[in-house]
Amino acid sequence: MTESGHLLISCPDRPGIVARVSTLLFDCGANITESAQHSTDPFGGRFFMRLAFTVATSEMGRVAQSLQMVATELQALTHLHWSSQRKRMAIFFSREAHCVLELLWRHRAGELAVDIPVVLSNHADHGQTIRDLGYPFLHVPVAKDNKLAAEIEQLGLLQDIDFLVLARYMQILTPEFLASFARPIVNIHHSFLPAFVGARPYERAYARGVKLIGATAHYVTEDLDEGPIVEQGVERVGHGHTVEDLKALGRQIERAVLARAVRWHVENRVVIHDNKTIVFE
Amino acid sequence: MTESGHLLISCPDRPGIVARVSTLLFDCGANITESAQHSTDPFGGRFFMRLAFTVATSEMGRVAQSLQMVATELQALTHLHWSSQRKRMAIFFSREAHCVLELLWRHRAGELAVDIPVVLSNHADHGQTIRDLGYPFLHVPVAKDNKLAAEIEQLGLLQDIDFLVLARYMQILTPEFLASFARPIVNIHHSFLPAFVGARPYERAYARGVKLIGATAHYVTEDLDEGPIVEQGVERVGHGHTVEDLKALGRQIERAVLARAVRWHVENRVVIHDNKTIVFE
Amino acid sequence: MTESGHLLISCPDRPGIVARVSTLLFDCGANITESAQHSTDPFGGRFFMRLAFTVATSEMGRVAQSLQMVATELQALTHLHWSSQRKRMAIFFSREAHCVLELLWRHRAGELAVDIPVVLSNHADHGQTIRDLGYPFLHVPVAKDNKLAAEIEQLGLLQDIDFLVLARYMQILTPEFLASFARPIVNIHHSFLPAFVGARPYERAYARGVKLIGATAHYVTEDLDEGPIVEQGVERVGHGHTVEDLKALGRQIERAVLARAVRWHVENRVVIHDNKTIVFE
Amino acid sequence: MTESGHLLISCPDRPGIVARVSTLLFDCGANITESAQHSTDPFGGRFFMRLAFTVATSEMGRVAQSLQMVATELQALTHLHWSSQRKRMAIFFSREAHCVLELLWRHRAGELAVDIPVVLSNHADHGQTIRDLGYPFLHVPVAKDNKLAAEIEQLGLLQDIDFLVLARYMQILTPEFLASFARPIVNIHHSFLPAFVGARPYERAYARGVKLIGATAHYVTEDLDEGPIVEQGVERVGHGHTVEDLKALGRQIERAVLARAVRWHVENRVVIHDNKTIVFE
Repeated sequence: MTESGHLLISCPDRPGIVARVSTLLFDCGANITESAQHSTDPFGGRFFMRLAFTVATSEMGRVAQSLQMVATELQALTHLHWSSQRKRMAIFFSREAHCVLELLWRHRAGELAVDIPVVLSNHADHGQTIRDLGYPFLHVPVAKDNKLAAEIEQLGLLQDIDFLVLARYMQILTPEFLASFARPIVNIHHSFLPAFVGARPYERAYARGVKLIGATAHYVTEDLDEGPIVEQGVERVGHGHTVEDLKALGRQIERAVLARAVRWHVENRVVIHDNKTIVFE
Repeated sequence: MTESGHLLISCPDRPGIVARVSTLLFDCGANITESAQHSTDPFGGRFFMRLAFTVATSEMGRVAQSLQMVATELQALTHLHWSSQRKRMAIFFSREAHCVLELLWRHRAGELAVDIPVVLSNHADHGQTIRDLGYPFLHVPVAKDNKLAAEIEQLGLLQDIDFLVLARYMQILTPEFLASFARPIVNIHHSFLPAFVGARPYERAYARGVKLIGATAHYVTEDLDEGPIVEQGVERVGHGHTVEDLKALGRQIERAVLARAVRWHVENRVVIHDNKTIVFE
Repeated sequence: MTESGHLLISCPDRPGIVARVSTLLFDCGANITESAQHSTDPFGGRFFMRLAFTVATSEMGRVAQSLQMVATELQALTHLHWSSQRKRMAIFFSREAHCVLELLWRHRAGELAVDIPVVLSNHADHGQTIRDLGYPFLHVPVAKDNKLAAEIEQLGLLQDIDFLVLARYMQILTPEFLASFARPIVNIHHSFLPAFVGARPYERAYARGVKLIGATAHYVTEDLDEGPIVEQGVERVGHGHTVEDLKALGRQIERAVLARAVRWHVENRVVIHDNKTIVFE
Repeated sequence: MTESGHLLISCPDRPGIVARVSTLLFDCGANITESAQHSTDPFGGRFFMRLAFTVATSEMGRVAQSLQMVATELQALTHLHWSSQRKRMAIFFSREAHCVLELLWRHRAGELAVDIPVVLSNHADHGQTIRDLGYPFLHVPVAKDNKLAAEIEQLGLLQDIDFLVLARYMQILTPEFLASFARPIVNIHHSFLPAFVGARPYERAYARGVKLIGATAHYVTEDLDEGPIVEQGVERVGHGHTVEDLKALGRQIERAVLARAVRWHVENRVVIHDNKTIVFE
């Protein structure tokens, strides 16, 4: 019986890290199937590595234990993830369903190795479609005077969730929500950040007369639209495109960009450092 | 003997414009070889049209005359350009030669139907290369205390020039220069505007951790980096790219984007309206 | 009350066509909102034009009548389509549902102005999903010994259909079917034609080690994979992609390419000439 | 004093290779700055790795010696390249200079860490331009009746060359030349292989009505256009493009694709296996 695992490690750069970690895995009988590394600077910078490997299930405990020792030795942050422990993902969205449907579709096609126990909207519009696809749908309305109550309800529903995806969820999460949830949140912003930070980006892209429009998937931080960027995409537009055309085209970009970012997160390919991401594609 | 012409026309939209203008050309024996149109709104908006056509040289005067009558009738702005009257283009650049060399190469390859009597830099570095390629090179140094004198010298050299291209010219032209020159100026900005307006865009793109970098060709107005956008391009980048890598990749984008924008300008494919461009590709 | 129309016209090129047709529309009080033209050769070639226009409903008959006269005069083929007469589209697919679902989603999002009375598969797998989305689903199994009967049944179901889309339908339609149906058929081929004509293109792309994979939407002719190409798309791949990865990535390309091609067909933007397409985007 | 090196290694896959090689480098005091690996199959497949590292110059010999031992142990093919030993590249071209000029330009910009002692054409057209840029130019005419003599002359000029780039060299090299040269040859083919294998690809792309055209950089083998593909690129085209337009656009693709492929070859990023390439970008 073998199990496959993903190991993310980051530590101060210095000679011998790759040797140390790969020897550890070899000593447990593991076979490395993917490896990628990045250093901000080989001399005094920070080192990042992602390894995918297979190992006998009987050796899983030993891998974890040895890793802990090496982490101490290297002053490293590590993240070890076993494929059999599927992550639990929640999705929030509002009126527009193209992003959430894309994620559910990819999930059904077997392209996202994750469980999706929560799909939630502040509007009821697409509930039946979500349920028809075989996913739970939760309707938590948000009004100005009930935002606190709504967020408390949401947090209750997210208790055993590993990460949250905002798939065109048009409510701003409060700092209190973020502090309380304290797990990764991936958002899709409907512009090519840092262009058109804030509201109504397609209207502003139209007004500026840009020749490319885009979308950006990023992790959510307290600074709106300023979190670490995971993925971006663009498409050409021209003078003949109306604002509505930009929105229709933008929906296609948003779907594709968010789906890639979520897949990378699920596959433990993304490390956040210094408000940027390292993506081991 | 036939001549080919380009006609740009813009006027308040109303029924019958295409019929009126195409009948005019037909009455002169012209054959329309390309036509494109755009309306900001068929009801009360502004209408734009570009026609390419061939006509007997003996009828060129009649086309121009008839056009004047129609222009009055339609309250239209018109621009009639004959292929035999090649535009005269000047190029300014500073230390980096990739953009100017790209334009000169395309010119030598027969892809830019334009004359280039002025290639000017505030540095002498690439003078010999430009001259080796068979183009005149002018060195006009610009220092803080001689900027006015330099611009006066430049304006003297540009007297019979139709339009100016800033091919990585790193000096900001004064409002006085712009007012005095008063002809189109195409600039290449080394970012995907409106992201990273201003100086050092690659450094800032690196710091923000974007996953695509770009370049923007735009007409120059008094508002720096705010003029009408003609063309944009992007390329993917990742966490492994240094600032120097971004600059090297950016050079390729800048070359390609500027070359397309200049070609479109030369071929009378661009109309400016409301700080945006209509590009009849 | 106004109606909008699309007019496609093709005829031997000669001076005056644009004038003649636009004057016709002007005389009926129509306002041209889009126009595009193409000539294979202004001197002795064939001329193609697409016009979108609005006109009073009371004048629709006059437009049609005048057009007939002009068509005779210009020896032109014409296609006049009124927006109120929605086209009727049928979709065939087999086991893989990504293409059909993409089309249905775009339809639900209001991006395809078409009716879809027939969604048919030779497998029952996705029937419930299609029905949940609110579309009729027909299951017509095809086995080697019942192909003729199956095609006869299919033809019966397609009697009032304007065009057919093969959205990963893995059966080859017989020449008899094509002759009998005799209306446009759009197919998505899962390679960048003419590379990898025929079966198992992803396996062959993998074996050849290409660095880009693609998909092609084309009209179906009796010559398999040789019909006029409407649209193509590609994505980068690398040595790390397995055949399964290519297929997963290919699904995204196929969806996007087919959706664009179908929209252009619906909006009367495509003309077939000489086994090629003119696409008035 | 430190030196930087590139190590390519390929061997039958089995657990412990990364540990073995990275420990070897660590024991010599080296610091790994880039690492990438690929396995055709972790169980019974072949394993490929590229490492970039820095090491004290005094330890260079020890790295080479240790590597030899490890290579024997792992039954590995290895390629060790030190940055101070710049590769020597020859370029052949015919009448069209866009590809050779692109390479020379990138070389001058410091983007290609290589020496270029031979630039050769069977036509004299661009000799002065090449020489003006500061490169040697050799004119070796090739006619039907002197092909053998020409190839012998060429081989004489290539004696101390590490690899050859065919930058739109329109002569087919004989099997005798290939056998005699016996070093890597990178060619740019002006189509998106395997579409349009052979001559006149732009004419055939035009005739087929494709919506994307491309270019392919590949290693030359005896089977024309069938060698391992290193890089490919495409651009959109439409019905309005003439064959000449395709060629002009194609030149831009060819330049970019060949430049990337040559850079990767220079930086030891490409491994050939089973008529395909692994590109450690």
